[in-house]
Amino acid sequence: MKRGDFLRASTGGLLATGLTAPALAQTPPQLTWRLQSSYPKTLETLYGTCEFFSRAVADASDGRFRVQVFAAGEIIPPLQIVDGVQQGTVEMGHSGAYFYMGKDPAFAFGTGIPFGLNSRQVNAWFYQGGGIDLLNEFFAGFNMFHLPAGNTGTQMGGWFRKEVRSKADLQGLKMRIGGLAGTALQKLGLVPQQLAAGDTYTALERGTLDAVEWVGPADDEKLGFYRIAPYYYYPSFWEGNSALSFFINLDKWRALPERWQNVVKIAATAAAADTQAKYDVLNPAALRRLVANGTQLRSFPQDVLQESYKAARELYAELSEKYPNFKKLHDHQIAFRGHSQPWWQISDFSYDALMLQAARQNW
Amino acid sequence: MKRGDFLRASTGGLLATGLTAPALAQTPPQLTWRLQSSYPKTLETLYGTCEFFSRAVADASDGRFRVQVFAAGEIIPPLQIVDGVQQGTVEMGHSGAYFYMGKDPAFAFGTGIPFGLNSRQVNAWFYQGGGIDLLNEFFAGFNMFHLPAGNTGTQMGGWFRKEVRSKADLQGLKMRIGGLAGTALQKLGLVPQQLAAGDTYTALERGTLDAVEWVGPADDEKLGFYRIAPYYYYPSFWEGNSALSFFINLDKWRALPERWQNVVKIAATAAAADTQAKYDVLNPAALRRLVANGTQLRSFPQDVLQESYKAARELYAELSEKYPNFKKLHDHQIAFRGHSQPWWQISDFSYDALMLQAARQNW
Repeated sequence: MKRGDFLRASTGGLLATGLTAPALAQTPPQLTWRLQSSYPKTLETLYGTCEFFSRAVADASDGRFRVQVFAAGEIIPPLQIVDGVQQGTVEMGHSGAYFYMGKDPAFAFGTGIPFGLNSRQVNAWFYQGGGIDLLNEFFAGFNMFHLPAGNTGTQMGGWFRKEVRSKADLQGLKMRIGGLAGTALQKLGLVPQQLAAGDTYTALERGTLDAVEWVGPADDEKLGFYRIAPYYYYPSFWEGNSALSFFINLDKWRALPERWQNVVKIAATAAAADTQAKYDVLNPAALRRLVANGTQLRSFPQDVLQESYKAARELYAELSEKYPNFKKLHDHQIAFRGHSQPWWQISDFSYDALMLQAARQNW
Repeated sequence: MKRGDFLRASTGGLLATGLTAPALAQTPPQLTWRLQSSYPKTLETLYGTCEFFSRAVADASDGRFRVQVFAAGEIIPPLQIVDGVQQGTVEMGHSGAYFYMGKDPAFAFGTGIPFGLNSRQVNAWFYQGGGIDLLNEFFAGFNMFHLPAGNTGTQMGGWFRKEVRSKADLQGLKMRIGGLAGTALQKLGLVPQQLAAGDTYTALERGTLDAVEWVGPADDEKLGFYRIAPYYYYPSFWEGNSALSFFINLDKWRALPERWQNVVKIAATAAAADTQAKYDVLNPAALRRLVANGTQLRSFPQDVLQESYKAARELYAELSEKYPNFKKLHDHQIAFRGHSQPWWQISDFSYDALMLQAARQNW
């Protein structure tokens, strides 16, 4: 008999007493899943989402559904989360969907696309705008079920060893940059590289890279880029929002009792909200420390923004022609952006503008 | 427990319960709570939060913890939710905390204050900035436990029968306006009125009111104000965010098993996220319909904004002197605003500005 079965046998004993038999008879079985993240424990923001989720599922299943959390590399390599989930090596993974665009560029919509929605808008699209269902039609083709796992908000445009004064300065620039942005910026002469977090610092220090974009102040500070690249650019026009992803093996998902499917959805939604809140508390403090340590903030020149916008549109047209899944998700999300913008402009944007004016003019 | 770790308490419970038989032995009993909202069923946004919450709690307790939802007035009057919860007439209520400022002006911080945080910032303050704990220190004095129940985002400044061209036009203006804004705007000569939703339409139609602020396009459209007041002003500088509240009788809260306390927190957090997403989908569509029906959008004149800002600051100074709870929460939240703003300016705000520029200039 396996260790554990002995203890479990006592449940039968409990049932036999008849004390609480009806409730216990309907009790779903004990279940343990393994969830691996692409991120190390040191990134309390990203890895923290998994810990929150795991605790929430345990509480919401009265401890019967356990999700064990593993950090980057503990079971499978950090950027092979999707493969591990598809094959069932782990039941569940936590990653950035756009790392897997090699399988199909439509993976990008799990994360976000350059010049896409902001964080509030993408949550609206996910939870109430049909986004989750549309993504899951697509991810079913990869034997996965997908849920949003939080958002970083608008990221920073990254760390540059030299200033970027015009689009000419992007010519030949070697930059660690994720997602579709790298492909779009190739049209402006940038040389995109995709490296895992751990390798970027050395590459930037040695000059193998000229620039690195990672996330924002809180995560970037931990990786120490400010020590070797003084210019910190904003905004990340390629990650106006950046959603994280929970991937679940589709067979395992379908085998879950409906109530536990709902528990997973509720726990993921709460974990996502908590993650955004954590970023919104940690980023302002980290930004202040970075500036105190000599980081120089710069906004991207207007021609870089405008040319990148055009390059992104060109890229979307090309991808839409070749990849039907990309086209379907792109058209849906861009229509949603057009739908949202007029309201955003007069509501939150005009309020934010007012509050920044009041601060600047010291009302 | 560290302030901010509002879900972490569960870890102890989790570890203590062990894996199998002991957990079942501790299975909590069947429980039914009554939750009444201040809002009618027709407001799918606000009332919908309660329905989401109730389903989530049922799923996350395996159906053993039932929260029955009641609409405005079904058990207690719509604006007496807090009294009903304090006295235990209902275990739980859903309302706008600022309706109860007569008890103590610090109730305002459950909802939001004029020129306060935006929706993302207040969630950061609530969930990760110590806001929930600080509010609950205060609400414990009223025999209640409080959780955020979603947010409308930045509201509209309301419906006006005549245009507001300068602050002079506020002199003697009779306006249905909630929260601290009414008191602040009295300093500019406005005559604030607090009426329940159902009574405002007739008052505006008869000219007993000159203006009405309610929420935003989605909710306002249902109340039909556009038929009788053509000018729709933005932004609501008094509700740059507006949080809704779950109030729970403190004795009932303390009697809950720790796991079910966590289930309530998780369900409330998910319901809150879903509510914001719903507003962000429904508002843009309603705005479009309103404009098609003849509504004329206007932004408040600069002198109204600036004078209102000064009036609000004066009011906060007065209230802080008289009410220590108000001072404590005000100072904490205003410090948080100062902490957040520099980051907000270069991240989401600059991204939003970029995207609106791209749309306006048709890049």
